[in-house]
Amino acid sequence: MTTVTPWEVEGKVDYDKLMRDFGIQKLDTKILKRIEKITGKLHFMLRRGTFFAHRDLNWILDEYEKGNKLFLYTGRSPSGPIHLGHLLPWIFTKWLQEKFDVELWFQFPNEEKVLFKNNLDFDKGDKWMYENMLDIIALGFDPKKTHFIVDTYHADIMYKEACMVSKKITFSMVKSAFGFNESTNIGQIFYTTMQAVPAFLPSVIKNKNIPCLIPHAVDQDVHFRLTRDILPKLGYYKPASIQCFFLPPLTKGEGKMSSSDLSNAIYTIDSPKEVEKKIKKYAFSGGMSTIEEHRKLGGNPDIDIPFLYLKMLLEEDDTKLKKIEEDYRSGKLLSGELKQICIDKINDFLVEHQKKRKDAKKMIDKFIYKPEKKKLYENL
Amino acid sequence: MTTVTPWEVEGKVDYDKLMRDFGIQKLDTKILKRIEKITGKLHFMLRRGTFFAHRDLNWILDEYEKGNKLFLYTGRSPSGPIHLGHLLPWIFTKWLQEKFDVELWFQFPNEEKVLFKNNLDFDKGDKWMYENMLDIIALGFDPKKTHFIVDTYHADIMYKEACMVSKKITFSMVKSAFGFNESTNIGQIFYTTMQAVPAFLPSVIKNKNIPCLIPHAVDQDVHFRLTRDILPKLGYYKPASIQCFFLPPLTKGEGKMSSSDLSNAIYTIDSPKEVEKKIKKYAFSGGMSTIEEHRKLGGNPDIDIPFLYLKMLLEEDDTKLKKIEEDYRSGKLLSGELKQICIDKINDFLVEHQKKRKDAKKMIDKFIYKPEKKKLYENL
Repeated sequence: MTTVTPWEVEGKVDYDKLMRDFGIQKLDTKILKRIEKITGKLHFMLRRGTFFAHRDLNWILDEYEKGNKLFLYTGRSPSGPIHLGHLLPWIFTKWLQEKFDVELWFQFPNEEKVLFKNNLDFDKGDKWMYENMLDIIALGFDPKKTHFIVDTYHADIMYKEACMVSKKITFSMVKSAFGFNESTNIGQIFYTTMQAVPAFLPSVIKNKNIPCLIPHAVDQDVHFRLTRDILPKLGYYKPASIQCFFLPPLTKGEGKMSSSDLSNAIYTIDSPKEVEKKIKKYAFSGGMSTIEEHRKLGGNPDIDIPFLYLKMLLEEDDTKLKKIEEDYRSGKLLSGELKQICIDKINDFLVEHQKKRKDAKKMIDKFIYKPEKKKLYENL
Repeated sequence: MTTVTPWEVEGKVDYDKLMRDFGIQKLDTKILKRIEKITGKLHFMLRRGTFFAHRDLNWILDEYEKGNKLFLYTGRSPSGPIHLGHLLPWIFTKWLQEKFDVELWFQFPNEEKVLFKNNLDFDKGDKWMYENMLDIIALGFDPKKTHFIVDTYHADIMYKEACMVSKKITFSMVKSAFGFNESTNIGQIFYTTMQAVPAFLPSVIKNKNIPCLIPHAVDQDVHFRLTRDILPKLGYYKPASIQCFFLPPLTKGEGKMSSSDLSNAIYTIDSPKEVEKKIKKYAFSGGMSTIEEHRKLGGNPDIDIPFLYLKMLLEEDDTKLKKIEEDYRSGKLLSGELKQICIDKINDFLVEHQKKRKDAKKMIDKFIYKPEKKKLYENL
């Protein structure tokens, strides 16, 4: 069985079924052309279908072309270290920010995992949040246009809006959306309202309705389905979204890279040695079991983790990727050689990333949104 | 049938049954003596049993005598004007603040009524909150020791704590405590956590466990029963409480003065003429229907609204009150005369109160708690 919820992704994900079940649209050639018109060359995650679905993207492009600029909203719920799977949508988000020249509101719902995990408290979670922020900043977001909002820290501008959202959502709605029951704690029950807030907070702050585009992995769609139902009732636009696949875990070509299983993920702070060991030891291969067989029959890149990482995340150059794919399929490129290409690519990326991650420490404060604390009653 | 919930008080309240049902203790002679030892003369609301019940008061007096000072916590959920019934527990709270020389944390849960009433939004509610603050300040609280906290405005110090509380409360717990069901909105479901927060927020801020005493009307007990269950699990003391009867509505000697029925209440902004008219027209009388009968049989002060207002709120002097009571019972004092005494007392009070209420406008800002906005990561 396949499960895809914001808290669990189990089994082989049938993305076509997911699109039908969720009611999300495929990113087809026509809409990709529209994006290309604005951005120039399409990002490789669009060219290769890693970002594969959307909601209301045509509408938001209409608005954009009319001069009604959108803002981007994405997020990270901190509870552990960042792995390559986390970076995927953020790398794409950064590209969107640059190409559309827009603001990004980056939410850190630091209460979410505290509410959903028994063994996590705010102290631990907020330490991870700090580490996670370094990774995000290291990706090169523009500090002038990127605002980090942290649920508990910014609750003075968020909780009131969350209450407005909550007034429109009943227990039975979250029960069916998230599978809650009578034993669910009331923080979990309320939580989705806080995830809805950044989709209209900039509209509140700027006192005008601004279209919101949310790039995210498909498992978060359920939150935003609720958000889309509620926001028009509060006078705001439905947020549009653009959604991606999960980067698969190291050990098999299905499911989602998970932070809870250490052998399943490459972390941004892994050393070159660790990366090498993990890929060599754990990365699921689509190659044949002996060199002879491989030379004769060729490998299968479609289920090969090193190839999928190159395709989805690491090798932007289509020509290079195509050559790797053909050589692998023909048997010219061996599994070990493909793994080495992947290891080198990851390590090239991570050496650079880890340097930027260090520099990011000085920059966190620049990214944290600082609303002016208004007087409760302005006229006093 | 009698209903006593935080949102509804219907019918004649059987306070003895309430004490048994809620599991609250009577303020008996022994504990009143203990209070007297600390405060000197007992407040008339204690002498006359208007404050009639408590939880853990002996414990908090033990702590107080050991030098472990308590703080007071009470609140006002703004949705309309203040009437005499609201003032009753606050007048007593002010006395407690003076006699025990302690801090008072005064919560304005400005989201509560927005979540529970269809026709209230934050704009309207927050206008009422402003008006309500004037009434509270007019009672003479010490601005140096009194901190107003407003749920949405102070959510940056409250929401995180509310999440910690919420982690310990399931839907089935609030369902049975408040009579919620599947159609209850998720803001209502979460709300009780925010009402729990001021009971330990000073302990969080001062980083030490401080005993909390909550003076409140008995209908709020259910919130604090939940709070008392949860706080020890978070490492804080159970809050103690001291609880009062409701000031009865004008028209009958039962239930609770309500803001939703204009003829049932005397508002703090009523003019002397309005007060006179309301008391003469609406105040339920325990007198006989003719003067002759009244002279012969006497009146019944126990169900007489003007007398009950004098006893519960307006006439601090026991000797004077006793004389009024005796004269009324004997028939010497007529209903109209008793009403006039009550009218004069109310108007004396209100003229003074309305003056202080005007001066309070300049003082609101002094009362609003101003935490230093800390950096998210102090070491940055």
